[in-house]
Amino acid sequence: MEILKNRILECAEVIDGKILKVDSFLNHQCDIGLYNRIGQEFKNRFAKSDITKILTIEASGIGIACITAQYFGVPVVFAKKGTASNFTGEIYKSKVYSFTKEKHYEIIVAKKVLSEQDRVLIIDDFLANGNAVRGLIDILGQAGAKPEGVGIVIEKMFQKGRHEIIKMGIRLESLAVIKSLEQGKIIFE
Amino acid sequence: MEILKNRILECAEVIDGKILKVDSFLNHQCDIGLYNRIGQEFKNRFAKSDITKILTIEASGIGIACITAQYFGVPVVFAKKGTASNFTGEIYKSKVYSFTKEKHYEIIVAKKVLSEQDRVLIIDDFLANGNAVRGLIDILGQAGAKPEGVGIVIEKMFQKGRHEIIKMGIRLESLAVIKSLEQGKIIFE
Repeated sequence: MEILKNRILECAEVIDGKILKVDSFLNHQCDIGLYNRIGQEFKNRFAKSDITKILTIEASGIGIACITAQYFGVPVVFAKKGTASNFTGEIYKSKVYSFTKEKHYEIIVAKKVLSEQDRVLIIDDFLANGNAVRGLIDILGQAGAKPEGVGIVIEKMFQKGRHEIIKMGIRLESLAVIKSLEQGKIIFE
Repeated sequence: MEILKNRILECAEVIDGKILKVDSFLNHQCDIGLYNRIGQEFKNRFAKSDITKILTIEASGIGIACITAQYFGVPVVFAKKGTASNFTGEIYKSKVYSFTKEKHYEIIVAKKVLSEQDRVLIIDDFLANGNAVRGLIDILGQAGAKPEGVGIVIEKMFQKGRHEIIKMGIRLESLAVIKSLEQGKIIFE
């Protein structure tokens, strides 16, 4: 997706040759015009899939998922991190390891918002090692819902996320795929 | 906003006479059609304000803020909770007390995404004691940005949030105002 790659080249910062900081337009300040282009592109790529729900995880995935959902005409569910005191009903949960924060956390989805009838598109801003996405796929499995695919805005293909998703036979569409951030230089695939 | 109140009466659950659970359509599963009606209503109410940016806080405010931003044609900034390891630049921060989680947490906004020129609409899903909103207003003050108003989806007027915002001279617009949840019964103002 050229408009996205150009924006990354123009506005992103590389930290320590591995972190790509896109907080001026994607995951802190949100350029809603760009979000709409992203949503449209996900719809184009998954046009033939009969999606009933979009699943993401708090926090940075939510805005992208909500704008994207307009193009599919479906609701969004965002998995919550940790146990909130007002989570009273029955839940699905899974454990996710965060490399950024160097700890495990739990993700939670209420049973009532996912069913066996759901065909789900997972949306997130980044794919690195794929731990969050695998947690979401685990929850879909518990619900008996079908993962129709995974839509990622920025994939760091030098980490193992892609491999982990593909080997489960799940379709992955990433709008910008980064091959390397070495020496602070952004190289797309 | 009738459509919202009806949805609350139809789908919300009351817990312990004080917590209103709206996770089936507002802050876990997100009804994007309803979100669009909410965004339109915020635009109607703040039609005369010259808004340059929408500010919210992770996580539940983000989706509503992003959909609403489409009606204003402005970017969204969402304040982050806690200190992320990839927050490298200069930041504004404020401390917020969460009654739900019974602890203080820090909220953070990068300096580069807010300026003195900004006239900001704060958006959130709930207003109870107003602590999160006051943290956001504190950050706007640090940036020299102008709080043009606060837009809330559901206000619990039996808690002190409204008073705290009004006494600062800031305009508050809540789309559904709840007077009481006693004995599990939802009474609107």
